Amino acid sequence: MAKNCFSVIIAGGKGTRFWPLSRAQRPKQLLKILSRKSLIEETVERVTSLCGREQTLVVTISEQLAALRKELGQLPKNNFLAEPEGKNTAPCIGLAALEVTRSRPDAVMIVLPADHWVADVNKFRRTLKAAIELAMRTDQLVTIGIRPDYPETGYGYIVKGKAIKGESGAFVVKRFTEKPDHAAAGRLIRQGSLWNSGIFVWKAATLLELLARYQPNIAHGLDAIRKQANGKSLANSNSTLRAAIIREYKKMPNISIDYAVLEKAGSEGKVLTLEGDFGWSDVGSWAAAHRMMRKDAQGNAGNGRWLGLASKNCLVHAPDRLVVLLGIENAVVVDTADALLVGDLRRSQEVRELVDELKRKGFGSLTIK
Amino acid sequence: MAKNCFSVIIAGGKGTRFWPLSRAQRPKQLLKILSRKSLIEETVERVTSLCGREQTLVVTISEQLAALRKELGQLPKNNFLAEPEGKNTAPCIGLAALEVTRSRPDAVMIVLPADHWVADVNKFRRTLKAAIELAMRTDQLVTIGIRPDYPETGYGYIVKGKAIKGESGAFVVKRFTEKPDHAAAGRLIRQGSLWNSGIFVWKAATLLELLARYQPNIAHGLDAIRKQANGKSLANSNSTLRAAIIREYKKMPNISIDYAVLEKAGSEGKVLTLEGDFGWSDVGSWAAAHRMMRKDAQGNAGNGRWLGLASKNCLVHAPDRLVVLLGIENAVVVDTADALLVGDLRRSQEVRELVDELKRKGFGSLTIK
Repeated sequence: MAKNCFSVIIAGGKGTRFWPLSRAQRPKQLLKILSRKSLIEETVERVTSLCGREQTLVVTISEQLAALRKELGQLPKNNFLAEPEGKNTAPCIGLAALEVTRSRPDAVMIVLPADHWVADVNKFRRTLKAAIELAMRTDQLVTIGIRPDYPETGYGYIVKGKAIKGESGAFVVKRFTEKPDHAAAGRLIRQGSLWNSGIFVWKAATLLELLARYQPNIAHGLDAIRKQANGKSLANSNSTLRAAIIREYKKMPNISIDYAVLEKAGSEGKVLTLEGDFGWSDVGSWAAAHRMMRKDAQGNAGNGRWLGLASKNCLVHAPDRLVVLLGIENAVVVDTADALLVGDLRRSQEVRELVDELKRKGFGSLTIK
Repeated sequence: MAKNCFSVIIAGGKGTRFWPLSRAQRPKQLLKILSRKSLIEETVERVTSLCGREQTLVVTISEQLAALRKELGQLPKNNFLAEPEGKNTAPCIGLAALEVTRSRPDAVMIVLPADHWVADVNKFRRTLKAAIELAMRTDQLVTIGIRPDYPETGYGYIVKGKAIKGESGAFVVKRFTEKPDHAAAGRLIRQGSLWNSGIFVWKAATLLELLARYQPNIAHGLDAIRKQANGKSLANSNSTLRAAIIREYKKMPNISIDYAVLEKAGSEGKVLTLEGDFGWSDVGSWAAAHRMMRKDAQGNAGNGRWLGLASKNCLVHAPDRLVVLLGIENAVVVDTADALLVGDLRRSQEVRELVDELKRKGFGSLTIK
């Protein structure tokens, strides 16, 4: 266990992609789709051995704080930081970096989304340990790149530059690319490009320096918060400190860490990527979940009681009643107490827009809890 | 209202074709799929004006007697006859004929399945009135033939022989045919053949005479029951009478009125058909129900709260929760408290076998009530 590192788990999901199972108050990281544990519980279990329980932080938004503390009873109460409002990842990661440097000015932080899936946990840990050492030694930003299994169009890609001497699997990042179309994804894979996992490893102090350089608005707000905290934890419920966080947060731009820092630092050759090959997915849709679930000979997967007759490649989530499929292919069926989704699994990317549609049509209450 | 006629409604459904909505104890005739009333309630309302409430009988099996009396509170309690066991339609119609002749030896009886759908009730009544007069005048068996809308393969067909002089739309039946394949159904329609509706009109005494001739086993049992009843109603709960019905029923063959009487009488030229054109269906499957339901511009129909997005030709039955369809075509979604069906609407004929499959797989309790 590395003494000088922190795991920072980003748990800010909105609960739209897995409707009707996910809701605003029951976002993806709390769902039990792939195992009997929630995705965030799996994430915490995956990383606690790396930096220790005491140095595993969770950053979320205020509304989800109580639910997450309850879900993750093994973590100290003060390890939960609450953003007053969702502002994408840059302010969130900046806040966490501030908290990390408060207790250990030279610590490395691992930034991990709460809702990913990993197949080989040991390989995952070995990769992250190597990334921690790489970040400590080089003082650069390290992103975990995943060797692609197939031309996924829902991910960003990392185009590798030159290899780092003496560091197995480490490369300078040549550039980041947006979600490609299918043909472009194939070309990227043939070039040896990697999936951008959104898992980052760097010294907290380095990140704060780069925020000061590239995002003075955010750095300015963080400085004001640090002064107000005056050495106290940012998880402290002190009302003056809380008021300062709310006030400064309001002024910060809504921007991702990728745009805010990584792309800029990358263009200056200051971002490295370390290849990971541990079996990974961001579980971005019902179709992605289906890919990872155990399937029968017809490609059907399910949680709960279900029966597939003359049916293929379906996903059923039905904890409370029997679902029978008759002659159905490529469908997702999600049964909850008040709403049922029957969708084409290949269109599950559209579930997000469907939630907006529900709100417009007066069914907003079915998207909250 | 014709004084000398009885309506006999045959209500012996098994509750398999509309699973999971239908169950052994909640058969099709009790379902509210096409309107806010059950199919049997619609049937009773359709015919009471023909022969009067007092002369509208319902024949069912013992297990459904209580539920049907409750459902049809408008009918006198003694108008319900209970078969001790299901034995197809010949014994059932024989029993009803016995009851009819008991009070009016020369009465005509209209035999109607409980679970049909009719579009134009006035036209339907006019056709049945004409059939009653035809049966009284000719003393022959009259079947209502329906002018086909399309080459349905789930129905039997009536091939017409020569027209009856002076009787509009009446023909001698040349022969009955089994359910044809699609090509044969097309040929039958081009020949002017009719759907066999299963609605029959004849003098009860004539039917009993023909049973004596073609089905001595049934006639013998009916005679024994008549002797035991000794002028009392067969709905009477007298235990000696009940015991006689149970005993005689056990000995009767399991045979339909079509095989037992109509085909034989038809081959002797003694069956007539009267053309009906009132919009009719036997509501034999979810697909048949979909055909009759009001649909939106995309061909979707539903009961309850549902939303179709990029979806076509679906049927949703969901009284208790919101169902959202996303990119789904030709599906039937039926939501009940303990079971959910998601099926290909075009395979809804297979729901019957599905119920057998459920029993084999240990889900039999979900097919009972």
